[in-house]
Amino acid sequence: MSSESTEESDDIMCATYRALCRHGYADLTMQDIADEWNKSKAALHYHYDTKQGLLLSFLDYLFDQYRRRVADPSGDDARERLLSFLDASLAPSDRDASREFQTAALEIKAQAPYEGAFRDRLVELDEFVRRRVRELVAAGVEDGSIRGDVDPAAAATTVVTLLDGAHTRRVALGASVDEVRQPLYEYVENRLTDGRSE
Amino acid sequence: MSSESTEESDDIMCATYRALCRHGYADLTMQDIADEWNKSKAALHYHYDTKQGLLLSFLDYLFDQYRRRVADPSGDDARERLLSFLDASLAPSDRDASREFQTAALEIKAQAPYEGAFRDRLVELDEFVRRRVRELVAAGVEDGSIRGDVDPAAAATTVVTLLDGAHTRRVALGASVDEVRQPLYEYVENRLTDGRSE
Repeated sequence: MSSESTEESDDIMCATYRALCRHGYADLTMQDIADEWNKSKAALHYHYDTKQGLLLSFLDYLFDQYRRRVADPSGDDARERLLSFLDASLAPSDRDASREFQTAALEIKAQAPYEGAFRDRLVELDEFVRRRVRELVAAGVEDGSIRGDVDPAAAATTVVTLLDGAHTRRVALGASVDEVRQPLYEYVENRLTDGRSE
Repeated sequence: MSSESTEESDDIMCATYRALCRHGYADLTMQDIADEWNKSKAALHYHYDTKQGLLLSFLDYLFDQYRRRVADPSGDDARERLLSFLDASLAPSDRDASREFQTAALEIKAQAPYEGAFRDRLVELDEFVRRRVRELVAAGVEDGSIRGDVDPAAAATTVVTLLDGAHTRRVALGASVDEVRQPLYEYVENRLTDGRSE
């Protein structure tokens, strides 16, 4: 892909983000996205045949951004890197529209049973997150910053479930990032590290 | 309310359940519900002015059923009663349509930012679940079946977040009840009771 078409593609992804925040998933049309892109619907259809195809590319774009953001979490030991990873996962961006975007993302999750291609992406992302957490926990067992009796695979499943719960609670209950961070920290501090930093 | 109208109301709630499973939340119409009820849309409107009003009654009905089901979880000590409570919360019924219903329930959660009355109900239910878990954990600290260093309020927040995550994972990833039960058991066995029953 040439850099020009990459730029165009990035513009469409940003327009999709804004359109989702403004209209929500259920009501989203190709026209809404074209409007945010400041081009015609025909020009948008030149790039994407269908709304589903565009939204799949959008999921790939989001996951790409996420993977890059959490690639190298900061910290002096694995426990600290795990906490940085969780922070980056909980607060995916500081854009104002975050609450709206979280809502659209939950609508997309609720569509997964009807849209196999959405579910495939969500499963792939889940496996990525689970693997990263498992590696960080295993590294912590190794460097002594996490308890030696912790099973990294089981801990990773618990952490991704807490992350999914945190996302749902932000949308369904209007909970703040600080509120939904608590159970994740509670788990890391009390189960994974025996409260040593409290 | 006379027993006749209670019966009629129960019939409408069952019809709503079936219509939600068949059509999903987004596409649901009063006609769909009337069809499942085997009566006319006019007859349905006699009971409920709007679809939103009917769905609010349906949420109240569901939460009532849930509250009754988890009112007295079985077990010899508080830890066992907590596990029974979690099992009842994870597998709300053995109806075949459960996966479809879980999906409709997640769609309703994703609507909460747009529908204040939905959110109020969800917050109320969350507070109920959190209080029950807190009481069970506190009883476990008291009767010795749960570690003495556990803070019941913090543990309750973690447990409700795991329950929310479990629900989302069933829908978004197609995970089974057995899969999503694991992190809850992992938490109870390893954080709340120090793996004593493993």
